[in-house]
Amino acid sequence: MQKSLSVYDSDGSTFAPLVVIELALETKEEAIAWLLNRVRDKQQYGGAELLVEQLTPGAQGTEKVNPNVYVVGASWQRLLYGAEDVGLFKEFNDGSMRGFTYANKHNFKEFQGDGDGFLSMAECQYIIKHELDNLRAKDEAHVPGYPKMKLYPGKSVIRRMQSKGILVQVFPLHEKEELKRLSFSWYKNIKLSFQPLDDIRHYFGEGMALYFGFLEYFTLALIPMALIGIPYYLFDWEDYDKFTVFAGFNLVWCTVILELWKRLSASLAYGWGTLSRKKAFEEPRPGFHGVLGVNPVTGRAEPLYSNAKRQLRIYLVSIPFVLLCLYLSLYVMMIYFDMEGWALMIHDEEPTFWTGVLLFIPSIIYAVVIEIMNLIYRYAAEFLTGWENHRLKSTFQNHLVLKVLVFNFFNCFASLFYIAFVMQDMVLLRQSLATLLITSQILNQIMEAFLPYWLQRRRNKKAHKRMIKTMGDKELPLSEQVKLEADMSTYLGTFDDYLELFLLFGYVSLFSCVYPLAAVLVVLNNVTEVYSDAFKMCTVFKRPFSEPAANIGVWQLAFEAMSVIAVVTNCALIGMSPQVKSYFPESETQLILWVVGFEHFLLASKFILTFVIPDVPKHIQIKLSRLEFESLEALKKRVNKMYKETLDEEKPQTSVWISWVYEVYG
Amino acid sequence: MQKSLSVYDSDGSTFAPLVVIELALETKEEAIAWLLNRVRDKQQYGGAELLVEQLTPGAQGTEKVNPNVYVVGASWQRLLYGAEDVGLFKEFNDGSMRGFTYANKHNFKEFQGDGDGFLSMAECQYIIKHELDNLRAKDEAHVPGYPKMKLYPGKSVIRRMQSKGILVQVFPLHEKEELKRLSFSWYKNIKLSFQPLDDIRHYFGEGMALYFGFLEYFTLALIPMALIGIPYYLFDWEDYDKFTVFAGFNLVWCTVILELWKRLSASLAYGWGTLSRKKAFEEPRPGFHGVLGVNPVTGRAEPLYSNAKRQLRIYLVSIPFVLLCLYLSLYVMMIYFDMEGWALMIHDEEPTFWTGVLLFIPSIIYAVVIEIMNLIYRYAAEFLTGWENHRLKSTFQNHLVLKVLVFNFFNCFASLFYIAFVMQDMVLLRQSLATLLITSQILNQIMEAFLPYWLQRRRNKKAHKRMIKTMGDKELPLSEQVKLEADMSTYLGTFDDYLELFLLFGYVSLFSCVYPLAAVLVVLNNVTEVYSDAFKMCTVFKRPFSEPAANIGVWQLAFEAMSVIAVVTNCALIGMSPQVKSYFPESETQLILWVVGFEHFLLASKFILTFVIPDVPKHIQIKLSRLEFESLEALKKRVNKMYKETLDEEKPQTSVWISWVYEVYG
Repeated sequence: MQKSLSVYDSDGSTFAPLVVIELALETKEEAIAWLLNRVRDKQQYGGAELLVEQLTPGAQGTEKVNPNVYVVGASWQRLLYGAEDVGLFKEFNDGSMRGFTYANKHNFKEFQGDGDGFLSMAECQYIIKHELDNLRAKDEAHVPGYPKMKLYPGKSVIRRMQSKGILVQVFPLHEKEELKRLSFSWYKNIKLSFQPLDDIRHYFGEGMALYFGFLEYFTLALIPMALIGIPYYLFDWEDYDKFTVFAGFNLVWCTVILELWKRLSASLAYGWGTLSRKKAFEEPRPGFHGVLGVNPVTGRAEPLYSNAKRQLRIYLVSIPFVLLCLYLSLYVMMIYFDMEGWALMIHDEEPTFWTGVLLFIPSIIYAVVIEIMNLIYRYAAEFLTGWENHRLKSTFQNHLVLKVLVFNFFNCFASLFYIAFVMQDMVLLRQSLATLLITSQILNQIMEAFLPYWLQRRRNKKAHKRMIKTMGDKELPLSEQVKLEADMSTYLGTFDDYLELFLLFGYVSLFSCVYPLAAVLVVLNNVTEVYSDAFKMCTVFKRPFSEPAANIGVWQLAFEAMSVIAVVTNCALIGMSPQVKSYFPESETQLILWVVGFEHFLLASKFILTFVIPDVPKHIQIKLSRLEFESLEALKKRVNKMYKETLDEEKPQTSVWISWVYEVYG
Repeated sequence: MQKSLSVYDSDGSTFAPLVVIELALETKEEAIAWLLNRVRDKQQYGGAELLVEQLTPGAQGTEKVNPNVYVVGASWQRLLYGAEDVGLFKEFNDGSMRGFTYANKHNFKEFQGDGDGFLSMAECQYIIKHELDNLRAKDEAHVPGYPKMKLYPGKSVIRRMQSKGILVQVFPLHEKEELKRLSFSWYKNIKLSFQPLDDIRHYFGEGMALYFGFLEYFTLALIPMALIGIPYYLFDWEDYDKFTVFAGFNLVWCTVILELWKRLSASLAYGWGTLSRKKAFEEPRPGFHGVLGVNPVTGRAEPLYSNAKRQLRIYLVSIPFVLLCLYLSLYVMMIYFDMEGWALMIHDEEPTFWTGVLLFIPSIIYAVVIEIMNLIYRYAAEFLTGWENHRLKSTFQNHLVLKVLVFNFFNCFASLFYIAFVMQDMVLLRQSLATLLITSQILNQIMEAFLPYWLQRRRNKKAHKRMIKTMGDKELPLSEQVKLEADMSTYLGTFDDYLELFLLFGYVSLFSCVYPLAAVLVVLNNVTEVYSDAFKMCTVFKRPFSEPAANIGVWQLAFEAMSVIAVVTNCALIGMSPQVKSYFPESETQLILWVVGFEHFLLASKFILTFVIPDVPKHIQIKLSRLEFESLEALKKRVNKMYKETLDEEKPQTSVWISWVYEVYG
């Protein structure tokens, strides 16, 4: 926990600043006062009981500085109660993971003294974010000073202010010392070792750690494929017999690694306490709107939006729109092939230097158009998914992921499919695959790491200069740190990182039997990806709030779908190879039937493998069952004891108690 | 509740007899006394606190009567506490289903007075069975009087005595009045109406009611297919174009009805209170053996058996055995086809009456051999699954179902597959399908209903004669009723009934495009099946203990697997039809590619449909979420209140309480 930075509370006691709240420059005084009051107020009066102070601006106000920046912290006791509230799981004395409770705190393994240091800073920040989000309107009809910013009882105050733009941002602070240590063990000294996943989780939370865990696992899992692929390149093996063996290995391997990842991720999530943690009830996401009604589940006043309307929007607008975009993408692809044919024709007629250059023009145009289309489509998909008005952030995310995934898959692979199955030109396919893979990797590295790094560096230099002017060699004061971090870019989540991995997985698996070197390239890319991603998380972006996650969610499904498609494409490619065709010289029908039979066999095997390999390793399963069993036993004992008491005399309090216990146990 | 029958307790108070325990004739006195004592003992001393009395034998002991027959009952209060113990869900005042609690009893909808009549007799019997099964050895090393009948602390006494044969049977009694009412509304007056599923569930429990619900649903769902199939028969439509349309409809329909059944079954299970009921920890099944060790989950002494050994037995013995049996079945089938070809040859050479008879001989032999093989295989499968030594009854069941299912599927459909895809003789396929379907239906009805009915009738007549001799016109005394019911056959569960439905579903779906009348036949069969099954449950068998069930379990999966296979077979049949072939006169390759493409499209659609249709209807989902939400809220309030108290003074009791609540909530 960061001790060096502290601000003084209004009582005069210091507290460690954890989270920054930035309000708009022109926010009215009464709204600010009201908000701060709500944040500080005791919980029984509906407050968050947190500590919050205005940030004292830096020494010289040379630039126009927004004065409405506040830092939020909390007492250790408040944070520990908050850990109970959010249902944090911690390691118990007996080595199992249990829901943390304040009353039982001394039985948790790492709890020492008064609990200072028991929670990591990321956990504290997560708790504060949870408490801030749960600050709900009581009887206020609107935000004071803003009659148009309507509130209703139970509406999250922070979300309303955020959606109306008064609240510019809420972000957690970095810890300089911790970050330095983490970045050193993570990417600063290049060595052969696993990533410090526990430290990453400690600093960035489980969602991020699972991404890096998956990235590392995926890379390691590809190494056998890469090793088998190298001799194909070195010895220039061109015969399809060997490729067929390679493809067969690939297909089994893809299924096995995806299944094993589920087990590994369950182990990781268990150790991090997110596997058995139950999800709290999700509140409507900020952008959700509707007629104020009563939520049938919670009984609370809440905007409602009919599901039928949403379905209509999805089926009548979103799906046709996506299909139209796919058609457009197909159309553009056909134009590209036409252009390429035309360029080739010109070049063949009268080959000069300029016609040689002309040969590259279609590919360049196509690549640029694809990028533009992806960009426009991304905005359109976000708009449409927003317009579908999903109540929960998770469903919104799923619908967005699905839309983007389908289009990106199509855009990236349509031309390869066309070359493979319509043109049936394996040499061109190999060339295109290699070109696409290499280009996309180079572009990605530039766009993802070097560009933001360069921008960040320029910004930092300016800040650094100013700092040296004012401070000399002393440590950066809090106000400067907050200012620096407030200006950093916001990390928008793991979506794009997973999408990139997903497309790479497609390059490796879909056409593996024509280009065995793909795995080698992807392994190389992933190794640099680990470093560039680590680098960008540590230096380029604002610290993100940690997201508890038990698995990689919808991406697991996406990767599995890709591996099913890979079975189909690889079988088709094998069937089209001249070596395989030569086994059936008389009858093409025989050949196709054999290939189809083989494909069905592979698909059935995949399905059976998925069933046979348990998703959670045995030893974790036993621990989970033990916890469940213990709570069942505890319940039984309690109830037995209680009803014996009830037999003696009917205490109304006890009976309410029992009924409640049963509701919980339900 | 049956009031007319009652026995006197040792205290002199009467109780309604619910369950019968029959011990072996030569059981030693001390073992009997010990068992009865344990059943009667108070719960705090490890007893079951039930009422139990020896059955006073009937008026004349003309036949040799076993005196060791006991009837078990319980006080209403004991049963209500038992309802808590087993976690029964009942309708609450607000219309939702909640876990019953004794303390909260007056808030349940149907609770009146002292709760007499609140629980159905089937529920009471289930509770008593549960309490008897949970009668566990304390410090006894063996059953008194039987030094070889080892016990260890925590071992279920009833199960040990049952596995050693001292305990002959435990069965619940029928209720004559209730049964008369049920059988009247169920099958006695033939009318067009739904089955009284709620009454069936009330009398036989949820597992049975779900079977009959599924049977009815399946029949209704086939009616559209049957209606579309009729014109094909009437107008002798032979062209495959129309069959193709029919098959297409069939495939979509199969997927949709299976998905909708999940929703319907969720609705039913919710109303019956089994949907949200959590499964208790399963105890090892009676036949399980191993070295006494400590269960890692419960920490109790229990026989343990290494999972690795079990896997070895499954993979090295069971799977090879099943494959060998499949090979044998295939071999027998080939012999059958050889014999048929040979008979046909003889008949064609010199057709006489005797060669005409000869034509039927192979089919008859084959049918008989198949029946014998099924029978032998069933025993072998049960032996092997027992030898695999599964710890839980549910895993044992799943492995047994899988073994039997695969072999039965193969035995029933292998010849059809051979005719369809190797011989490619559609006329023969249609004939064989019709013959198999009709024969198996007739055989089933005879084996399942008429034979047991006839046997039962002979028995009843004898009993009736004796009864009239002794009683004249009076009501049957308890001892006679018990004697009658003890002699009835034991219902072995829904396994065979589901298996039959599964095979019928196969006949309808696998080759639907060559024989559209199959659906009509299956509908007719199912209508009679409802009546014959209802009849056999009410009059032929002992009443079974009710089994709480939330769905049809592994059978849902089996039906879905069948519908996937149906997609493949139907697409292949369509591709082989001359009409479809005529669209691709030049290229067979084109044809096959189109068919394969179509098949992949259908499979993908099935998969997507399964995802898109939610398994639980919206309104049930809302009710479930509300219950969950309420318990979360209750927990929060409690914890908030508690920790405010803890802040005032650290009461150790409260802190234990909170920690325990969190364990439950976990």
